[in-house]
Amino acid sequence: MAVYTDVSFEELEVFLAAYDLGEPHVFKGIAEGVSNSNYFLQTEKGTFILTLYEMRVEVEDLPFYLGLMEHLAAAGIRCPTPVRARNGAVTGLLNGRAAALLTFLDGVSLRRPTAEHCQQAGVALAELHKAGANFAGKRANALGPAGWRKLADDCVAEADNVVDGLRALIQEELAALEAAWPIELPQGVIHADLFPDNVLFVNDHVSGIIDFYFACNDALAYDLAVTLNAWCFENDGAFNVTKGRSLIAGYQSKRTLQPDEKTAFPLLCRGAALRFLLTRTYDWVNRSPTALVMPKDPREFAKRLRFHRNAKSAEAYGL
Amino acid sequence: MAVYTDVSFEELEVFLAAYDLGEPHVFKGIAEGVSNSNYFLQTEKGTFILTLYEMRVEVEDLPFYLGLMEHLAAAGIRCPTPVRARNGAVTGLLNGRAAALLTFLDGVSLRRPTAEHCQQAGVALAELHKAGANFAGKRANALGPAGWRKLADDCVAEADNVVDGLRALIQEELAALEAAWPIELPQGVIHADLFPDNVLFVNDHVSGIIDFYFACNDALAYDLAVTLNAWCFENDGAFNVTKGRSLIAGYQSKRTLQPDEKTAFPLLCRGAALRFLLTRTYDWVNRSPTALVMPKDPREFAKRLRFHRNAKSAEAYGL
Repeated sequence: MAVYTDVSFEELEVFLAAYDLGEPHVFKGIAEGVSNSNYFLQTEKGTFILTLYEMRVEVEDLPFYLGLMEHLAAAGIRCPTPVRARNGAVTGLLNGRAAALLTFLDGVSLRRPTAEHCQQAGVALAELHKAGANFAGKRANALGPAGWRKLADDCVAEADNVVDGLRALIQEELAALEAAWPIELPQGVIHADLFPDNVLFVNDHVSGIIDFYFACNDALAYDLAVTLNAWCFENDGAFNVTKGRSLIAGYQSKRTLQPDEKTAFPLLCRGAALRFLLTRTYDWVNRSPTALVMPKDPREFAKRLRFHRNAKSAEAYGL
Repeated sequence: MAVYTDVSFEELEVFLAAYDLGEPHVFKGIAEGVSNSNYFLQTEKGTFILTLYEMRVEVEDLPFYLGLMEHLAAAGIRCPTPVRARNGAVTGLLNGRAAALLTFLDGVSLRRPTAEHCQQAGVALAELHKAGANFAGKRANALGPAGWRKLADDCVAEADNVVDGLRALIQEELAALEAAWPIELPQGVIHADLFPDNVLFVNDHVSGIIDFYFACNDALAYDLAVTLNAWCFENDGAFNVTKGRSLIAGYQSKRTLQPDEKTAFPLLCRGAALRFLLTRTYDWVNRSPTALVMPKDPREFAKRLRFHRNAKSAEAYGL
C-alpha cells in the first residue's frame, strides 16, 4: 500500500481548476490499494478521493468502472461516485496518469469480521447485483476461467517453490474446472473482489462498498463464491460454516439463488479460490525485492481450494 | 513517506478504549513523514492523527515534544494538540510502538511558496518563539554544533561520491563554524525543522504548524536561519532575496532581532545549511536499496552553504 505518483498541492490546484469543488483544505496521500495512488482531499464542497490509475488498471476500462459506480450510486448503493468536471469529463490527466475524483465514504474495513458482518456483506452484495442488473456497460472477466490458463502458464513452473505440491494442485484444478465450468448461470455485473478491505462499516453497519476495479460481467453466484472465500475462512485455514451460512442468508434475503446456482456452488467456490491462488502465485514468483508492496501469501488460497474440493454439495456451505 | 507499522481497525479499537473519542468512522494510513507511521482518524468527537513513533524518535523525548505542543496550543499557536487518555496519559503502546493521538489540522503544505507565504511563515515562527518562551521543558539540540562532528565522521569519507568537493567543503565548514559559532545569542524553544512541509495553509493563510519532532532549546535566530534555508532558495539553487526579506520582515513584525543576532546571521545560515547537508549526506551514503523512502538530495544544501559563505553581512539577506 503506497502512493506511487507524487502530486504537489500546486499540481492539485491546476487539476482542480476544471472542477467546481472550491478551495482545498486537506490533501494527503493515503496508503490504500495495491494498484493505484490515492489522495484524501477535503474542499469547501466536501470530502473526496483523488485516484491516479497506475499500471494495473487499463485506461480503456475506466469508463466501465466509473460509469458503473455512477449507475450504482444513482440506484442507491453507497459507493464512491465520480465527480464530473465542468465540461462533463469523469477522468482527467494528472502527472502523466489518468485520474478521477470520487466522493469519499466514511467507514472502516474490518480484519476480523463476525458472522453478523458476513450477513451484512451478503445483503450488500445482493443489493449490488440487483442495482447493476440494468447497467448498460459490458466488460469481460479478464480473471475468469478464460484467463486462468495463461496465468497458470506464467507461474506454474515455480509454484512448488511457494509450497510443495502447488504445481500439481493448480494443474489438476485447472483441467477439472475447464472441463466442468458451468456456463448457463444467471449473469450480471459482479464486483469480483469483495474482500473485507472493500466493505466499509460505521457502528457495525455497512456504510459503503469500494474498489470496483475488478468489476465485470459474469455469473452472479460466482461473485458470492468469491465473497465466501474472502470472508468465511479463519486464519488457520478452517472454513467457518456459521459465517458461510450468515453470508449466504444475507445474500438470499435480497436475491434467492436458483437451483442450478446452488448445485454449481462448490465448483464456483473452487474456481474463485483458484483465481486468487493463481494471481497471488503469479505475484509471488514475480515479486521484486525492491517493490513497495509485499505480495500476499498464496498458500491460504491453496488451503481454501482443498477445502472446496472436498465439499460434496452446496450443503457443505450451509446452503 | 510510508506507513511502517500496520494497525488494523480491531487493534485501533482496543487502543481507543482508553480514550473518550467515541466510535471511529474513518481510519486510513497516510503517506506523511519519513520517521513515523501516521493514520488519519475520524470519530464521533472529531478528527485526529494517530502517530506511531518509529526508530528515529527517542521515546524519552516524547514528553518534551508532546508537552511542548500542549503548551503552544494553550498559548494560541495552531499546532497538533495531544489528546489525553481517560487516565491522563499522552502516549500509549500500540503494536510495539509508543503512540499518541493528536488533533488534526486542516491545511495543505506548499511546494512553491511565494514571498507572501514566506512573510507569513516568518510571523508564525516568531509567534512560536514567543509562545515557547515560558515552556518549562528542556531538550538539547542533538543536531546542533555539538553533534555535527560525529555526523561528519560517519559520512565524510564517502562524501565525494555524492558530489565532487563535498568532503573538503564539509571539513572546512566544520572547522570554521566550530571556531566561530556564536554562543551568547537569545535562546528559547525552537522548531528546528520549519520546512514548507511543516506549515499548513488554508486560503493562503497559515492554518497550522506541524512536526515538532526536532524541537529543542537553541538560539532563536538559528531557527530563523533554518527557515530561511528551507523557504527562500529556488530550485536552481539561487537565493531569492525578496523571499528572504519577506520572511525576516514577517518574523520581525512579531519579534525584533537584536544587533548580535543580526551580526551572527550569515554564520547561523551557514550552520543551518551544514546541519541539513550533514544529515542528508549521512542518509545518502547509508541508504538502503530496499528502503521505502528515497533519501533527499544533499547537493542542494551544498549550494546553499556556498551561498552563505559568500555573504559578507546580514545585508545579503535583506536584513
